[in-house]
Amino acid sequence: MPTKKITKNTERCALQEILGVIGGKWSMSIIYALSHRTMRFSEIERMIPGINTRMLVKELKNMENNGIVTREVFATVPPTVEYTLTAKGKKLNPIIDELYKWGEEYVDKSMS
Amino acid sequence: MPTKKITKNTERCALQEILGVIGGKWSMSIIYALSHRTMRFSEIERMIPGINTRMLVKELKNMENNGIVTREVFATVPPTVEYTLTAKGKKLNPIIDELYKWGEEYVDKSMS
Repeated sequence: MPTKKITKNTERCALQEILGVIGGKWSMSIIYALSHRTMRFSEIERMIPGINTRMLVKELKNMENNGIVTREVFATVPPTVEYTLTAKGKKLNPIIDELYKWGEEYVDKSMS
Repeated sequence: MPTKKITKNTERCALQEILGVIGGKWSMSIIYALSHRTMRFSEIERMIPGINTRMLVKELKNMENNGIVTREVFATVPPTVEYTLTAKGKKLNPIIDELYKWGEEYVDKSMS
C-alpha cells in the first residue's frame, strides 16, 4: 500500500483505503457467505471454492481488525470458532448483491 | 485464479469471476476517474495517486479485454490515446458510489 498522499484527489485516496479493507481476493466472498448467518470457520471454508485454510485465516483476521466480522471462540473440544458480520459488514451486503447482479448481466457473456 | 470448479456454490464462483474483472487494486479507481468523461492516459495517471505507468497500462489492458473501457488512438504527434467507459463499465458507477459512501461512513473512523 503506498503512503497516503495529501492531494486534491482525496476521493480516490479514500477509494484506495476502502479497497484495502474489502478489496482482498476473498473478502467479498466471505461477506457474501456470512450474509445470512453466523458460521463456523469450517463452514465458511466449504462455502468458498478455491480458498485454502491459510488464506482464510489471514482474510478473516484482516476483516476482524477492520471491524467487518466478529470472532467468537467456544470452549468445546475441539474449540469452535464462529464468525459473524458486524453492522459495518452487513452494510456491504446490498453493494455485493448489486455487484453480483452486474456480473450476472455481463461477466458470463464476455467470459466462458 | 483457481480453475473454475463445478460446485453447488455457483454464486460464489461467479463472485470470484466478477472480482477477476473489477477487483484489481486499481480498477475501481480507474472506473471512478472515467465516470464523468473520456480521458487521456496521462490524465488518468494524474487522477490516481500511487499508480505507476506500468500498472496503469496493465489494468487498462485488462479492462479493455473485459469490455469495461474502450481505447481510441489518435494520429497526433505524439499519438494521443483516450479511454472511455463502455455501457458495461458505466453500470459499475452507482456500485462504486455506494462503496465510497460506505467508506465515508466507516473507513475513516476505523483507520489512521
